[in-house]
Amino acid sequence: MGKVHEYKLRARYSEIDGMKFVHNAVYPIYFEEARTDLVRQNNYPYEKLESMGLIMPLSQTKVDYKASIYYDEEFIVKVSVKQLKTFSVKFYYEICKEDGTLAATGHTLHACVDAKAGDFAEFPDDFREVFEKYLI
Amino acid sequence: MGKVHEYKLRARYSEIDGMKFVHNAVYPIYFEEARTDLVRQNNYPYEKLESMGLIMPLSQTKVDYKASIYYDEEFIVKVSVKQLKTFSVKFYYEICKEDGTLAATGHTLHACVDAKAGDFAEFPDDFREVFEKYLI
Amino acid sequence: MGKVHEYKLRARYSEIDGMKFVHNAVYPIYFEEARTDLVRQNNYPYEKLESMGLIMPLSQTKVDYKASIYYDEEFIVKVSVKQLKTFSVKFYYEICKEDGTLAATGHTLHACVDAKAGDFAEFPDDFREVFEKYLI
Amino acid sequence: MGKVHEYKLRARYSEIDGMKFVHNAVYPIYFEEARTDLVRQNNYPYEKLESMGLIMPLSQTKVDYKASIYYDEEFIVKVSVKQLKTFSVKFYYEICKEDGTLAATGHTLHACVDAKAGDFAEFPDDFREVFEKYLI
Repeated sequence: MGKVHEYKLRARYSEIDGMKFVHNAVYPIYFEEARTDLVRQNNYPYEKLESMGLIMPLSQTKVDYKASIYYDEEFIVKVSVKQLKTFSVKFYYEICKEDGTLAATGHTLHACVDAKAGDFAEFPDDFREVFEKYLI
Repeated sequence: MGKVHEYKLRARYSEIDGMKFVHNAVYPIYFEEARTDLVRQNNYPYEKLESMGLIMPLSQTKVDYKASIYYDEEFIVKVSVKQLKTFSVKFYYEICKEDGTLAATGHTLHACVDAKAGDFAEFPDDFREVFEKYLI
Repeated sequence: MGKVHEYKLRARYSEIDGMKFVHNAVYPIYFEEARTDLVRQNNYPYEKLESMGLIMPLSQTKVDYKASIYYDEEFIVKVSVKQLKTFSVKFYYEICKEDGTLAATGHTLHACVDAKAGDFAEFPDDFREVFEKYLI
Repeated sequence: MGKVHEYKLRARYSEIDGMKFVHNAVYPIYFEEARTDLVRQNNYPYEKLESMGLIMPLSQTKVDYKASIYYDEEFIVKVSVKQLKTFSVKFYYEICKEDGTLAATGHTLHACVDAKAGDFAEFPDDFREVFEKYLI
């Protein structure tokens, strides 16, 4: 059973809309923040990836909105890895309010691509090992 | 066969990221812009909806990224209605570059809710009629 | 007396905040949109600038908020050039509502820099000529 | 000599632009974040303000850009109060990189307004006392 990475955030005033809760397009930014932190806490293998000429373009985002997040509210974004294939990885997210209520779930799908060749490429072993730790 | 609403947009400098193309979290904003314009071009029935105590919270967003959109590039967002149920409506989107290339597809799912009662409600007839025109 | 460039925009739902009007940090984006359009309408000399190894970093932004801009409201951003020096240019902006009310004024200050040398550089003549047309 | 409130932030990927550093329109959001935290650390007197029918609309923003902030870079936003008048307060900001380099300075000017009467109002004493602690 894989680890779940937790990242704490707080809703900014610039992120809420006229209904006084976080605008729907901000959730993918929260996902990205938490995913970036997962990679950062595992000693930045993404830079290694880039130095090997590999990139990880996003091919799909999905968000299921469950409960509103209000201005100045603190919440936890939980990230794990749901599918780890030869050329792609799917991250799974849960946004939880302080009282444990689920505010949203979602996923993002990323391919591994050789930037020069413009073709799919296999994840390097040490990068794959990071993802495997979070595979649920 | 329903109509498809087309809305022209241009990528802003503030919307691109370090890879010089539009950031993934901006696509739901483009969807919203085009959906808002569809409603606006049909004489603002949304205001009528609100005046009847009804709201349309977003319950799901999905984006499939197909090709990058670059800074200052013009593109068309096509909106149609994919599912029209008693209490919900699913909008379907295609983002097309000027040369016809598909840059993204996606959908958003919206419920019809009685704001006071906090329960699902049926769409009023005239609102449903607008959606039916775009049903594919 | 110089020309004033006018650019029409409409406030997006994602741009308003909990008070139901456009968030303060969105105004510099409107300024940038209008300034970009001024340059675009004058046959993209900015690309020429870049191809000559020159860049125009922003060194100052100022916004004076006069009246709120509401969701879905259309407005005009007027741009002109207020100071044109050897190594810098100051753009001046006015945001006007449809009824003529002034919603905001502001300016941005840009230097002309030789990207490689990292030092100030003179604007090329054809670029300076574009700015001179809008000098007030 | 007043206190200076310090708030630590990190540049998000969605906040950088095609030049790979933070977009100019994001700085006012950083200012707002730090200012909100100053108020939060002093036991939320802003809510008290609102409950007394008072609001604090922003009337001016100024940013002087000194050095770029890069993706994933951590930095400190320092906030203090520069002018405290009967009906208005001016916050002063400095953004400092980890090595101490000044990335930006700026200010925001806020009026105190009676929301119902639509006229200027005096800051309540306990709110004024919070500002006085940070007056430089």
